[in-house]
Amino acid sequence: MVKAYAVLWCLTIRLLQKFYLTQYFRLKLNLKIKDIHKQMQITTLSKQKAFGGTQGVYSHQSESTQCEMSFSVFEPHKAQTEKCPVLFFLSGLTCTQENVTTKSGFQQYANQAGIIVVCPDTSPRGTDFPHEHDDYDFGSGAGFYINATEEPWSKNYRMYDYIVHDLPELIEHHFPASLEKCGIFGHSMGGHGALIIGLKNPQKFQSISAFSPIVAPIQCPWGQKAFNGYLGNNQSLWQSYDATQLILNGKRSPNSILIDQGSNDNFLEEQLKPELFLNACLNKEQPINLRMQEGYDHSYFFISTFMQDHIQFHANNLSQ
Amino acid sequence: MVKAYAVLWCLTIRLLQKFYLTQYFRLKLNLKIKDIHKQMQITTLSKQKAFGGTQGVYSHQSESTQCEMSFSVFEPHKAQTEKCPVLFFLSGLTCTQENVTTKSGFQQYANQAGIIVVCPDTSPRGTDFPHEHDDYDFGSGAGFYINATEEPWSKNYRMYDYIVHDLPELIEHHFPASLEKCGIFGHSMGGHGALIIGLKNPQKFQSISAFSPIVAPIQCPWGQKAFNGYLGNNQSLWQSYDATQLILNGKRSPNSILIDQGSNDNFLEEQLKPELFLNACLNKEQPINLRMQEGYDHSYFFISTFMQDHIQFHANNLSQ
Repeated sequence: MVKAYAVLWCLTIRLLQKFYLTQYFRLKLNLKIKDIHKQMQITTLSKQKAFGGTQGVYSHQSESTQCEMSFSVFEPHKAQTEKCPVLFFLSGLTCTQENVTTKSGFQQYANQAGIIVVCPDTSPRGTDFPHEHDDYDFGSGAGFYINATEEPWSKNYRMYDYIVHDLPELIEHHFPASLEKCGIFGHSMGGHGALIIGLKNPQKFQSISAFSPIVAPIQCPWGQKAFNGYLGNNQSLWQSYDATQLILNGKRSPNSILIDQGSNDNFLEEQLKPELFLNACLNKEQPINLRMQEGYDHSYFFISTFMQDHIQFHANNLSQ
Repeated sequence: MVKAYAVLWCLTIRLLQKFYLTQYFRLKLNLKIKDIHKQMQITTLSKQKAFGGTQGVYSHQSESTQCEMSFSVFEPHKAQTEKCPVLFFLSGLTCTQENVTTKSGFQQYANQAGIIVVCPDTSPRGTDFPHEHDDYDFGSGAGFYINATEEPWSKNYRMYDYIVHDLPELIEHHFPASLEKCGIFGHSMGGHGALIIGLKNPQKFQSISAFSPIVAPIQCPWGQKAFNGYLGNNQSLWQSYDATQLILNGKRSPNSILIDQGSNDNFLEEQLKPELFLNACLNKEQPINLRMQEGYDHSYFFISTFMQDHIQFHANNLSQ
């Protein structure tokens, strides 16, 4: 009789155990789902009609940068009835998503080509590390599209992961986006971002272009300052975020790379040095079209002048 | 002998008088020339290549507003070899010359059409009257393109004279401008400015268009506040700066007037009321093309979407 009670007691304990363990894991799972759900939530900050399409600005909690990030999305008229290819524009030092969204006029050509254009911010926001906001070329507004490894930057300054993983997933979840057709372009620091992210992920981003990009950050003051601060002294990491080195190390884009560079750009000789990238591409037989644009500077007037060509270039590549 | 001395003395006095008077008037004349010269001087703040032309920003000392005013001028490529027609764009509340210059993308179409585009500021600057900078719709950034008669505004807030007299003279003096071919357009408060200045000076400004203009300031809160502050209670003065009243009182433009108005504009019903102007034009047989643009708001996305049409409209009118 005692044995029967003992068995009954054991069984009861087992059942209770199982029940509570199940409850525990269910709770954990729910929390996890809630977490993912929260990461996938976006807040609409504005939505305006532009050139027949819709220009929106949104924010969301990013897993990679561990903070609230804002970004803009232009949906062409065509997106009302079918999924469209996506083009990411990465902005330069000091910018947010707003500059290119309000100044470059890309909406006109994106609407004509039926392409969704996504413009992210240039760094994490809302953090306040020592000296984070002191310089225009380091810290806030200057994320350089890499994953920082140095303290205190390594937790939030993960713009590479943000652009490669977080943002495309979010776009696919919320917009009529056909993510298997994807291009990337950018300006200056954002041109560097477009080149390295495109070259390191050629299946994800099949089409790359840039306006006055930093093509060899490890060989110019802007890049050296940023890489030193975010990556410390790790030279192989430096090389893995340098477009010219990536080409020399065998990375390729499936299409020709389009670069426009103003001849009257104040940063041309010290910071940009497009010839370094051109030579690497010629050396490694990566097709490239570097166009020196006579008399143009580093501004949005330059960008807007050649925006139509860039959108057309990506539209052609992505329609193949 | 005494008589001879007296005559000699008189003659000497006369000569001295003449000499000093001449000197005096010469001095005054020189000062006047210097003054005109100073008024005609401009300072170049920036010059950038854009869409094949040149986008410049300048400042000068205005006689009408008695202060330093900044303005932008776009010169199309064509202006390098021949004189071009001129189009003045008047901006809306809170703006400077910068908004339309950097956001609307007019340069592309102005270069194609071979038209110089001049964008002035929206009020005098550098003054500091009580409450001048308190409200977005009165005082600085809100000159309303009229000549104020009330204190303390009457000395500087003379934007009507500034646009009609100072600026065209300055443009003719410094740029390859053909001022006998001249158009005027603007946005919101600047649309009001374009309408009243065009209608009151049809020989000077032969072509008028507007984006979401205030067409009847004496019948809306923005206009009533501004006219009350700048003009006091003088109702005949109010009427002389009201586009709808000007049409009803017989003023005309030699060409059809083009107006674009977004249907989703927050200010449409309370402030803009385009139907009042439309009815006046129909009543008085002033040709007008009022286009309600479905879904567009009051922003620069709206302006940039229809900028090409407006530049083309003026180019056609000015080529006749």
